[in-house]
Amino acid sequence: MFNQKLFLMIPGPTPVPESALVELARHPLPHRSPEFSSIFMECNEGLNEIAQTKEATPIIYAASGTGGMEAILANLLSPGDKVLSVINGVFGKRWADMAELFGAEVERISLPHGKAVQIEQVKGALDDDTEKKIKLVLVTFSETSTGVVNPIQAIAKLVREHGALIAIDAITGLGAMPLKMDDWGIDVLVSGSQKGFMIPPGLAFVWVGPRAWEAHKEAKFPRFYWDWTKAKKALEDKTTAFTPNVSLICALRETLRLMRAEGVEKAWKRHERLKQCTRRSVQAMGLELLTIDSEGSSAITAIKPPAGIEVKQIRKKLKEDWQIVVADGQADLQGKIFRIGHLGFVCDRDVLTALSALAHVLEGLGHSVGNNWTKVYADTLKEFAA
Amino acid sequence: MFNQKLFLMIPGPTPVPESALVELARHPLPHRSPEFSSIFMECNEGLNEIAQTKEATPIIYAASGTGGMEAILANLLSPGDKVLSVINGVFGKRWADMAELFGAEVERISLPHGKAVQIEQVKGALDDDTEKKIKLVLVTFSETSTGVVNPIQAIAKLVREHGALIAIDAITGLGAMPLKMDDWGIDVLVSGSQKGFMIPPGLAFVWVGPRAWEAHKEAKFPRFYWDWTKAKKALEDKTTAFTPNVSLICALRETLRLMRAEGVEKAWKRHERLKQCTRRSVQAMGLELLTIDSEGSSAITAIKPPAGIEVKQIRKKLKEDWQIVVADGQADLQGKIFRIGHLGFVCDRDVLTALSALAHVLEGLGHSVGNNWTKVYADTLKEFAA
Repeated sequence: MFNQKLFLMIPGPTPVPESALVELARHPLPHRSPEFSSIFMECNEGLNEIAQTKEATPIIYAASGTGGMEAILANLLSPGDKVLSVINGVFGKRWADMAELFGAEVERISLPHGKAVQIEQVKGALDDDTEKKIKLVLVTFSETSTGVVNPIQAIAKLVREHGALIAIDAITGLGAMPLKMDDWGIDVLVSGSQKGFMIPPGLAFVWVGPRAWEAHKEAKFPRFYWDWTKAKKALEDKTTAFTPNVSLICALRETLRLMRAEGVEKAWKRHERLKQCTRRSVQAMGLELLTIDSEGSSAITAIKPPAGIEVKQIRKKLKEDWQIVVADGQADLQGKIFRIGHLGFVCDRDVLTALSALAHVLEGLGHSVGNNWTKVYADTLKEFAA
Repeated sequence: MFNQKLFLMIPGPTPVPESALVELARHPLPHRSPEFSSIFMECNEGLNEIAQTKEATPIIYAASGTGGMEAILANLLSPGDKVLSVINGVFGKRWADMAELFGAEVERISLPHGKAVQIEQVKGALDDDTEKKIKLVLVTFSETSTGVVNPIQAIAKLVREHGALIAIDAITGLGAMPLKMDDWGIDVLVSGSQKGFMIPPGLAFVWVGPRAWEAHKEAKFPRFYWDWTKAKKALEDKTTAFTPNVSLICALRETLRLMRAEGVEKAWKRHERLKQCTRRSVQAMGLELLTIDSEGSSAITAIKPPAGIEVKQIRKKLKEDWQIVVADGQADLQGKIFRIGHLGFVCDRDVLTALSALAHVLEGLGHSVGNNWTKVYADTLKEFAA
């Protein structure tokens, strides 16, 4: 019975508000109807608000986030084009591998686990490119596998000065932390439905800025399902090029309304509070974090288990005793960290609940969490109060 | 208020059973969990039952049907490969265009609107290919834009004798009409969630048979999101390569259970009955059909409006007065036909309702439907009784 209480504190799918679940439960609308067009267009407007752009064209794909990442490469590159790729973990690596597979020449800046790229590293790579061969720079906003955040604003500025395009994987993180597409000069952005947008997986969002549209005209990679020109032509008719995921788009309209009601900046502040409460509390419990504070994501926190206790024991007891799911590490971080998601439809109570359960699990496994974390939590909550 | 009574008699999205809508309304499961794996694997089994295959590997994509069509080309072809394409309408043409765009050499057999391909035409093209350059034959099972069905079994036999691979777009039609992947020697099949599978759009299904797996090894088109090797590797771990559309997969498990409970052959018979009731009744009302009986789809029927009455008038009155949505024609058939879908979660009452409303709309628009169609409907129902 308590399976139905399963409580996801993972970096996606994130919790879905009841009013969005109700939207999913409706009979699907015909996708070529004025009723659906109106919902679809409201979503496009809402997406631009979240990405802080008035200039970009939003494209909604029936796909997972990886599909949106592929779409960016397919629409911007030609065989042999050079790409600079910042890699902080599994998803940064995936994007670089994908670009290489499709025939781009990829220069990689690979960071150690849990470290953000330093602005000098990007500057170095761009400065070395005296022949301006680099066409596109790929950077992850908040790397899901490690909970690290890159300094996007500063990187985007450098890339603009160089003349290349900058594409940001904001699949995790968008909605949770400041990101301003127009102000920061980001050319393309990708995100997904099951993260900050608070609905189940199945939609990828790509925002295409003016310079990206220019580059798209010259880009020779073949594309059909991902083609931006087809998407734009359909958008002019207030529809999608191919059958849209009607139900998820109706649910998205609802969560975008909730996001607008809260306000983008208030949401950033809430996530900052959830992050700080999580980080300081688990540190007060005697645990180590993977990232330093200034590089830690507001969407997810990666935590090292105490010596002698295995990640799988912590995850098992959290799930079995408390019906809370947290994520393992991925790839070579599997078993080395666990990740608590605090992204999207997450309130202070949710984080307190997860931390309290974690404290009990750790005590049960023989690690004393001490008697200070409750006070640390309370102080942090006060410090970052709305 | 009666917007909520909107009744879809279009070729997709098709009506969704309440028990599947309820699945959509649940909080999403974590996609890397044993709970989800078990649902996912039950879906894969059910998909193979519907496609009548024990040999093929089913792949579930977060994508619409067009994505699945692209996946087949990306996984089977190399630049310059020759493809034979049978085109009966919008979707056949889309597949051929896509193959050409990706760099295949495409030979087209283009049929007039509403005509099935004749087996001699396919034989002619294959016989002419004495150097065996044709690697892949693309055929639509039930062309959504015209409601015509191609003789897949006979074509597959010819293609096997020639040595090429045969891929079938069964996006519309699968579940509604006999199609036996293994028995008929079909190498690859694609379908989608919002048709015979009775759930909203957002999933594409591709079934990969043994000969297709062999060809896949040699195929050089680049692919990442669509890659079958990645999908198969993930399937061995009872999961998907990229984040799956968790909610739709849970709903699919439910509709596959309903499909199993009815039985594949009984479903084919039911759809044959819905088709015949529709065709004979509208003919009795004095309307003309686009297809001949033996070539008409059990999923959808394309109907010409009576002289002097416009398709848009019929569609408008059906929607406004009776809350029933039927489809317009597509591309150059727009305004020339309307299409009644009778696919998926559709019972005799639904077809009777749609036909009765149509009769009233036609009378209202000045076309006398005569006094015979009710008897014709009753006789047809009896003739094709379960």
